[in-house]
Amino acid sequence: MSFLKGNVLIGQSGGPTCVINQSLVGIVETAIGVDAVDRILGARHGIAGVLAEDFIDLGRESKETLEAVAITPCAALRSVRMKPTREQCEMALDVFQKHNIRYFFYIGGNDTAETAHILNEIAVEKSYDVRLFHVPKTIDNDLRVTDHCPGFGSAAKFVASAFMGDNQDNRSLPGIKIDVVMGRHAGWLTAASLLAREHADDGPHLIYVPEVDFSIEGFLGDVERMYKQHGRCLIAVSEGIHGPGGEPIITSGEVDSHGNMQLSGSGALGDFLSAKVKEGLGKGLRVRADTFGYLQRSFAGYFSETDASEARECGRKAMTVALAGDRQHGSIFMAREDADVYRIGYEVTELRNVAKETRDMEAHFLKGNCDIDEKFLDYVRPLVGKMPTAARLSDFPL
Amino acid sequence: MSFLKGNVLIGQSGGPTCVINQSLVGIVETAIGVDAVDRILGARHGIAGVLAEDFIDLGRESKETLEAVAITPCAALRSVRMKPTREQCEMALDVFQKHNIRYFFYIGGNDTAETAHILNEIAVEKSYDVRLFHVPKTIDNDLRVTDHCPGFGSAAKFVASAFMGDNQDNRSLPGIKIDVVMGRHAGWLTAASLLAREHADDGPHLIYVPEVDFSIEGFLGDVERMYKQHGRCLIAVSEGIHGPGGEPIITSGEVDSHGNMQLSGSGALGDFLSAKVKEGLGKGLRVRADTFGYLQRSFAGYFSETDASEARECGRKAMTVALAGDRQHGSIFMAREDADVYRIGYEVTELRNVAKETRDMEAHFLKGNCDIDEKFLDYVRPLVGKMPTAARLSDFPL
Repeated sequence: MSFLKGNVLIGQSGGPTCVINQSLVGIVETAIGVDAVDRILGARHGIAGVLAEDFIDLGRESKETLEAVAITPCAALRSVRMKPTREQCEMALDVFQKHNIRYFFYIGGNDTAETAHILNEIAVEKSYDVRLFHVPKTIDNDLRVTDHCPGFGSAAKFVASAFMGDNQDNRSLPGIKIDVVMGRHAGWLTAASLLAREHADDGPHLIYVPEVDFSIEGFLGDVERMYKQHGRCLIAVSEGIHGPGGEPIITSGEVDSHGNMQLSGSGALGDFLSAKVKEGLGKGLRVRADTFGYLQRSFAGYFSETDASEARECGRKAMTVALAGDRQHGSIFMAREDADVYRIGYEVTELRNVAKETRDMEAHFLKGNCDIDEKFLDYVRPLVGKMPTAARLSDFPL
Repeated sequence: MSFLKGNVLIGQSGGPTCVINQSLVGIVETAIGVDAVDRILGARHGIAGVLAEDFIDLGRESKETLEAVAITPCAALRSVRMKPTREQCEMALDVFQKHNIRYFFYIGGNDTAETAHILNEIAVEKSYDVRLFHVPKTIDNDLRVTDHCPGFGSAAKFVASAFMGDNQDNRSLPGIKIDVVMGRHAGWLTAASLLAREHADDGPHLIYVPEVDFSIEGFLGDVERMYKQHGRCLIAVSEGIHGPGGEPIITSGEVDSHGNMQLSGSGALGDFLSAKVKEGLGKGLRVRADTFGYLQRSFAGYFSETDASEARECGRKAMTVALAGDRQHGSIFMAREDADVYRIGYEVTELRNVAKETRDMEAHFLKGNCDIDEKFLDYVRPLVGKMPTAARLSDFPL
């Protein structure tokens, strides 16, 4: 336990989630009234706000406002997609010194952890005493080390509920339906569509994730087979699917400063696949495509309670560990206990273990080229919590 | 009160809603144990199931199954998009006679009411004694006579919650965001996005409905103005927007048997508008488009309680009126009492008053070319019921 007195600064970065503000509030509430903490500041728009010294005073927010913000989706501090240069990171450290920032928390994904990692390296070089922590969030669930990521459970619940409803829709008015799900590198969120399958003939009948190479020919064969079997076909497709060389199926050409191609915010992939099905299997077929888009990460009023409380706890843990001072920096992660009952422990790992690289779904969760193994249900169910159910008539004959 | 003994037949038709099974269960539960009712049958896939004599026995379903089905989205009897020919309608009457169908209920929209209307005309000509009722449902809310339609409240809640979340997303990562909402002829569902606006600078900043002619030039001017004012712009667009001559903005060319063009199940309109914005206002702008698609009518586990209980009551009313026998046929509608407290009465109107034609939003709900009047909130709030709230930080300066 080493005492370090100064100001706390918090930023949020990358694509929002429905529970990202739980982590923010978890940090703030843990910092309130602590001797070592002078002021609790927020940087608007993450690292961009740090560089611009665009700070707000979070310590003056009422308990009521904080709780209301906690259940509001998306970054209350506002977010940013910006990979700072080395020079900008050095400038950020100057800002830290100028404002006596001794505790910095950056809530985000692997790119955010990378920025925190670089900031920490510079702080060590400059011998500036600041405790730097990354708090995980991403609906993609693709961070390394952690069992799962805050934000994923709520998005998974949204996706599973959407597929549960769309399966009923597709059963009402049969046809071929393609649903495109977020997930740039990893198929975790797309795989959550498996939760919608209750009866043997329920969709999604096909699930495509980026962990398996995709080919149009294989896809058309799969669709034809399922359509013959069920008279309909509901398909879950990750936006990140790609060919054997890693080449995208279609490309918008728009790239952000981390080198990430724009995948979401367009119906192009779904429409492309839809056209391919009509072309390959018959113009007369009823083929539709929906792209779930930003609703998966932002829909108001529908989230996983487990996800919300875990996101809160990750924020609390970050502040607690920072205050303790046994570690100068790190990334919070969740470890699942190996027990019959779902239980999570909150731990800290090195920033470099989480920075930059992402985590694919493990091979044992995959089933062939176009399905997910039922083992995945044991993994994902506790994260999503209570799901709606879909009932059928018994279809009693006369 | 005239006694007519025989079998009950129920069908569901058109695009599903989240509460369409409430109406089904409302009919069934009211028919159970009634002297005049021999058997309660369901036709699978609506009129197609009638013609194929594809019937199931609903009277044998347990109370538990019926209640579970009631809260499951989409047509449990399965649906159909089919405008029967005159000959097919005559065949359907033959099937009624063969199976001693004396009560027929067809749950659907204006096209469904049209089919019920024709069936009734033929029954009168043939002097076949059958009581024929249309039970309203449509997320589009575009049926005539009724104050609003079962299915609309839940879809409006979904759309409003999606916009509430997406407004936070757009505030987190500013840019121009286009969201395409269902609604072929009328803008009711798109207008429900207004519920997401809490603060003066909240989106949707622009709302386009089919009741107002749309032009790309006007649209680009509106977007530029809002983007300058707010540094971001969230836009609600109805899928049914069209030019001054009624010509669609883009067209898929796919038409159903009622002559309706395919609008949903594609991201094409959103992507087209998105490309136009980049082309007209600057390639460097961050422009995204989402098309909410079938989630609006099928999402599991998120519905309006008011909508669910009204849909149930419409089903009950239909069976009650049919049994009473004062009317041989009709369409159930909801009349809103002119009172401070929201209260609904259930009434019956002639089938021809609801058949075929749709109802646009009244002019007093519109505000200029690209907005909805706040008066609409009084209309829509009770239908949607409890909404989530979106809270902001106070942004206290240092």
